[in-house]
Amino acid sequence: MSALEQLIEALRRLPGIGQKSAQRMAYHLLQHDRAGAQQLAQALQHASAVVGHCQRCHTFSEHALCPICSNAARDARLLCVVESPADQAAMERTGSYAGYYFVLQGRLSPLDGVRPQDIGVRELLERVSDGVVDEVILATSFTAEGEATAHVLAELLKNRGLRSTRLARGVPVGSELEYVDLGTIAHALVDRRAT
Amino acid sequence: MSALEQLIEALRRLPGIGQKSAQRMAYHLLQHDRAGAQQLAQALQHASAVVGHCQRCHTFSEHALCPICSNAARDARLLCVVESPADQAAMERTGSYAGYYFVLQGRLSPLDGVRPQDIGVRELLERVSDGVVDEVILATSFTAEGEATAHVLAELLKNRGLRSTRLARGVPVGSELEYVDLGTIAHALVDRRAT
Repeated sequence: MSALEQLIEALRRLPGIGQKSAQRMAYHLLQHDRAGAQQLAQALQHASAVVGHCQRCHTFSEHALCPICSNAARDARLLCVVESPADQAAMERTGSYAGYYFVLQGRLSPLDGVRPQDIGVRELLERVSDGVVDEVILATSFTAEGEATAHVLAELLKNRGLRSTRLARGVPVGSELEYVDLGTIAHALVDRRAT
Repeated sequence: MSALEQLIEALRRLPGIGQKSAQRMAYHLLQHDRAGAQQLAQALQHASAVVGHCQRCHTFSEHALCPICSNAARDARLLCVVESPADQAAMERTGSYAGYYFVLQGRLSPLDGVRPQDIGVRELLERVSDGVVDEVILATSFTAEGEATAHVLAELLKNRGLRSTRLARGVPVGSELEYVDLGTIAHALVDRRAT
């Protein structure tokens, strides 16, 4: 395989990149942006080498504790459980949450053989047993697997006498009712709140 | 900037990749495919180091002459002029062309300050003066700039007594006439051929 073909092959491993896009990227980098290719190669190697996981919440971190877990000013009574570092980042960008996080390694998926021990449920149960956490906010996805994961976690937490909550389901901000799917409207109706 | 942010930044330099896609790629590589990240880093460095340009046709090549220019069995009377190695690859994939190529470095664009000497027109005129090339097929894009480039090249070749042709314009294979743009239909009508 030529160096160009090897590059196209490697680019195809990126999520959402097929043969055509990989070709376009390879040609672009070699023809117009060799400095960009070097920068990307170095960033990949650097990140692979230094980015590990926070010992406490398991998000990506270059240090033993991530900046959030190292921040003593946050509310230790709240723990938000998400499926991935990307979900945690989205949550954090809202600026509306002041507690700590616990990042699972994905979500339960019995059909794919993903069991509680594979996504870090044991570590979560250890984490919540610190006597300080008072409410666990289950912020897994609103997909079948995310819901199932939240359900299993809620049961486990309940058995340990811990209170858990789930993010509200409802109509997304900025959407016109006409275009919202019916399941969402039905949930929003059930979960309606006093004005 | 953290290693993760540096990686996202570097991925954003890829064509067609915005902030969201770059984030998704970075998270994916770090969480699920560190081997892929290593492979990509190495492929980028290897390709940057070894891929140069063919001395004769200027396409990407790891050797002084690319495999096509080194192939003495092709038809030396035909020379196909394209805008980029990607265009040459597309041409070659058709399997319908047996001549040699000349790869320009882009197309003329007076507004962006891209002049004939910037895209290798002098080298093209040297290449066609070998006394063997008999027909130059202008396969630049069918955009305003590609057409202008073809026009300028046709004039220069004509002045040197060389015959040039242009790829046929017409209705794309597999398309329904109803959905083809009007300019294309108009051209296909003008260039209609006997059955």
